[in-house]
Amino acid sequence: MKVYNYSDLDKDSIAKLVQRNVDPANEIRTIVEEVLGNVQQHGDRALYDYAGKFDKVALDKLFLDKTELEEIASAITADQKIALDIAYANIYKFHQSQIKAEDKVHTMPGVTCWRELRPIEKVGLYIPGGTAVLPSTFLMLGIPARIAGCHEIVVCSPPQKNGKVNAFIAYVALVLGIDKIYTVGGAQAIAAMAYGTQTISKVDKIFGPGNQFVTKAKTIIQSTTTTAIDMPAGPSEVLVIADETSRPEFIAADLLAQAEHGIDSQSILVTTSARIAEKALVEVEKQTEVLPRAEIVRQALDNSYVVVTKSIYEAMEFSNAYAPEHLILAVKDWEHIAPEIINAGSVFLGNLTPESAGDYASGTNHTLPTSSYSRAYSGVSVDSFVKKVTFQFITPEGIKNIGPHVEILAELEGLHAHKNAVSVRLKG
Amino acid sequence: MKVYNYSDLDKDSIAKLVQRNVDPANEIRTIVEEVLGNVQQHGDRALYDYAGKFDKVALDKLFLDKTELEEIASAITADQKIALDIAYANIYKFHQSQIKAEDKVHTMPGVTCWRELRPIEKVGLYIPGGTAVLPSTFLMLGIPARIAGCHEIVVCSPPQKNGKVNAFIAYVALVLGIDKIYTVGGAQAIAAMAYGTQTISKVDKIFGPGNQFVTKAKTIIQSTTTTAIDMPAGPSEVLVIADETSRPEFIAADLLAQAEHGIDSQSILVTTSARIAEKALVEVEKQTEVLPRAEIVRQALDNSYVVVTKSIYEAMEFSNAYAPEHLILAVKDWEHIAPEIINAGSVFLGNLTPESAGDYASGTNHTLPTSSYSRAYSGVSVDSFVKKVTFQFITPEGIKNIGPHVEILAELEGLHAHKNAVSVRLKG
Repeated sequence: MKVYNYSDLDKDSIAKLVQRNVDPANEIRTIVEEVLGNVQQHGDRALYDYAGKFDKVALDKLFLDKTELEEIASAITADQKIALDIAYANIYKFHQSQIKAEDKVHTMPGVTCWRELRPIEKVGLYIPGGTAVLPSTFLMLGIPARIAGCHEIVVCSPPQKNGKVNAFIAYVALVLGIDKIYTVGGAQAIAAMAYGTQTISKVDKIFGPGNQFVTKAKTIIQSTTTTAIDMPAGPSEVLVIADETSRPEFIAADLLAQAEHGIDSQSILVTTSARIAEKALVEVEKQTEVLPRAEIVRQALDNSYVVVTKSIYEAMEFSNAYAPEHLILAVKDWEHIAPEIINAGSVFLGNLTPESAGDYASGTNHTLPTSSYSRAYSGVSVDSFVKKVTFQFITPEGIKNIGPHVEILAELEGLHAHKNAVSVRLKG
Repeated sequence: MKVYNYSDLDKDSIAKLVQRNVDPANEIRTIVEEVLGNVQQHGDRALYDYAGKFDKVALDKLFLDKTELEEIASAITADQKIALDIAYANIYKFHQSQIKAEDKVHTMPGVTCWRELRPIEKVGLYIPGGTAVLPSTFLMLGIPARIAGCHEIVVCSPPQKNGKVNAFIAYVALVLGIDKIYTVGGAQAIAAMAYGTQTISKVDKIFGPGNQFVTKAKTIIQSTTTTAIDMPAGPSEVLVIADETSRPEFIAADLLAQAEHGIDSQSILVTTSARIAEKALVEVEKQTEVLPRAEIVRQALDNSYVVVTKSIYEAMEFSNAYAPEHLILAVKDWEHIAPEIINAGSVFLGNLTPESAGDYASGTNHTLPTSSYSRAYSGVSVDSFVKKVTFQFITPEGIKNIGPHVEILAELEGLHAHKNAVSVRLKG
């Protein structure tokens, strides 16, 4: 990891450092467009073909039912079951708190406005499989979908070599009350949920992370159909802010947890202490040696760096410019600097709050804006699974109060039929 | 307007009726991409060139300052001022109510999670000009941006022939405390706000309606940069649900208010009463005759239709399939059917609540999801101008409670560095 002094960096160097490539997968557009077109045209037939071609498995059907999921899930141990149940309970509790009834507002006498939540009727969840099987992602998407009250939850996850999903995914499905998982992966799964096939329902919004083919498919779907997506996605990243009170071995562990995701992951350390930076880097070396994914980690670290600042406020300034997905404030005095956070997906406060806790079980969602998207996007929450519909009701008194002003406003915009819709009512 | 009987329609006919073309502007992609590329490369120079080419005006600078805005705004009348002030007050009051502090949630002993709002730092508002000058849109975007606390609000609006904006736009800028308007319109305005130029700041999110060039530019920006957009956009539309208690002249006025927006607007009447449908159509003919925009209205009505249903529930079923931007429940008993609404942008209840009221002054936002996007999207609100950042804090007790489960979960996903980030802390 390269080390920079913040005071040596001019505006352009900072802009370059915080830059991520948001469209690295443009060269795969052609492949993805072909997959999308094929699924749209041939439906299930294309899904069977792609299972053979990409997943190297000959499927005789495209889903697993409840009985099959129960059988698969029976393989998990008691400890694993408890851990998944606790994650479920914490995530459920935090997400449940996000639902708030809103007040009716009398904007003027006889004019009342309010918002009501409506669940998105049909949602699609993409749960990665293959080398990275992520039951935690299934919890993070399935729980808010359930709390929102979505009527139909379509789940796609790539088949393993045996044509099935793994035991953890099956267990989470049952906990969520989801009776069917479609063993479809990749861009073809996104296509199936966006267009619908004989077996898989078309959905209104698609959620979930995936490889660059999945991500590209979601981007294309968002700009060419009425199916929405959760958010744009890029490689995962963490930014750790540390001071003299931080523990180098904790910092190192957090940087490495991020780095093991993939060679394009980024781990950034911003610290007021050159001494802590040095010690953390020694720890990084030491801890890397014993990691099974050391090779991936080393490549990700080549892509990562350290910035040494003069003050904690400078550190926060850099962090806001970077707009990290995960921000760890590994400092004692986090209460004082947390209000300075402008751009971040999820924030981990103090020395005892590792990102891993939020990745799995603290209760917050781990589907978060990467690639500086946290400047404008929030992570997934119950909000992502509902619409807020506005309502208004006007009484006879209300139309007398508001009507004449609406007539003037419609007229000044040259919209006479808009004006008339009020005038006919004022005439009674 | 063609009249259909709901009972004569099979699933496919309904699917065809509710279908809108979401990507009509694909043929203009090349033009828009050229504009985007030019602005990205040449900055202000390109903006001056496009003002000459598209707006037919030679600008000597790209903005109007406070003094100029004050001078321009002085032209409006006292009545217009009052109407705009009342609209401002109502919209402000309703949007202010959307900000709610959230609770801290103890998901397990020693583990606390919560969300905090952070304004999007830099937002760009596009306010259409030219033939349709929309001060109401400026209020609808500027007010929630102010309430959210966005640090920088960049406003672009096309120059009129005199190189300025009109008096209403200037007045709204002053009411909102916005001291500068950039006289830049079209796809070039979207490009300027997405990439930044010498004069115009790059923003994090772009809001506002526009013609098909503006809309296409926003779609391209969303999928190729980290700048977000408010929502995808299509032609405006209304769906009126009416029964025997509805007033034909009110229904007609509401259908026509929608139709005058443009030839691609859609006005749908769904009613349980063939008699009311007939009377409303007669009223439509009668009211159209006196409208200045009658030619536009007639073309839009060719694109519109009536559906007669057997029950109010069938009417709502059709409405949910259509997923209208604006839904008028022009029925006495609206309390009984409002809960059945699944998909709609904004809802107008009863016979005395015209869409015009919400377009201008009731308090709700008029920037709403069209083209069936209301299945997955909400209209603009204060939410659109903020991020909800998640926070978590874990105590020494908390890490003991949650840590061992996180270790198990990380291990079952094969992420050993994730596990280690907890293990080092449990060892202390």
